[in-house]
Amino acid sequence: MEKQMHDTNLGRMISLLYRQFQMHINRELKALGINSSQYIYLANLYEKDGMNQEALSSALYIDKAATARALDKLETSGYIRREVDARDKRSKCVYLTEQALSVRPIIMEALMKWNQIIQEDLSVEEIMRTSETLSRMSNSVLSHASGGPIGEGDKQ
Amino acid sequence: MEKQMHDTNLGRMISLLYRQFQMHINRELKALGINSSQYIYLANLYEKDGMNQEALSSALYIDKAATARALDKLETSGYIRREVDARDKRSKCVYLTEQALSVRPIIMEALMKWNQIIQEDLSVEEIMRTSETLSRMSNSVLSHASGGPIGEGDKQ
Repeated sequence: MEKQMHDTNLGRMISLLYRQFQMHINRELKALGINSSQYIYLANLYEKDGMNQEALSSALYIDKAATARALDKLETSGYIRREVDARDKRSKCVYLTEQALSVRPIIMEALMKWNQIIQEDLSVEEIMRTSETLSRMSNSVLSHASGGPIGEGDKQ
Repeated sequence: MEKQMHDTNLGRMISLLYRQFQMHINRELKALGINSSQYIYLANLYEKDGMNQEALSSALYIDKAATARALDKLETSGYIRREVDARDKRSKCVYLTEQALSVRPIIMEALMKWNQIIQEDLSVEEIMRTSETLSRMSNSVLSHASGGPIGEGDKQ
């Protein structure tokens, strides 16, 4: 299978792994009505609840329109609520609901399971080395002016 | 910035790099009216035109509903056309239009530019090693029964 062949195109390999991840997360979280475009906001809010919507968008490298769509869906499903940001009346802050807190273990379990699957054939040293390399790749993107939402007219 | 810190959670690193890629491709292909959910079908069809829609979905590890949405948009924009599959009247084959062939260099350039950015700080040896590791990670996913569309009731 072409898919399993060695491919020195790192961009393509990352894209493939991410699509496999999307299928995993869609399957694992289907019963919750949460998909691969939405889980990441909850995962981020579990670490820092009450973030400003635009700051959330920038921190995640997801454009504002896509962020708005995903948050609309999460709000309709009862996982988040939004309130006007006291520090900037033009924008909103995003808060987790009780329902979101109650499904946190399921989401964390799905993410942990994914990490176990992709790392199961790697040594600790390989995990460390790969993580360092991926980190360097991500920093190369940031070092280009056009690497993220910053510099594209965002407020941050 | 938290984002730039060393992170041994490989799943999270891949997700971050993919979101950075999405921003890159959305920016690079904006003038063509093609986004990060759509370019991949064209990139695949450039390698093998006329694929069956479900085979395309399976090969890319993207679920059928998302594939249908992306192809609807590409068809409306004039990049693809679909015809009933002569070998299976219930499904369709997807073909590139002249318009899609005319933008091929722009899409390939955007993908090449991305690879150059993420690889610019890596040695050839690091690229080879990382690619081999990512390939092993992807194969670990495939070795789990639930790793892809196959086994989820798809025809292949």
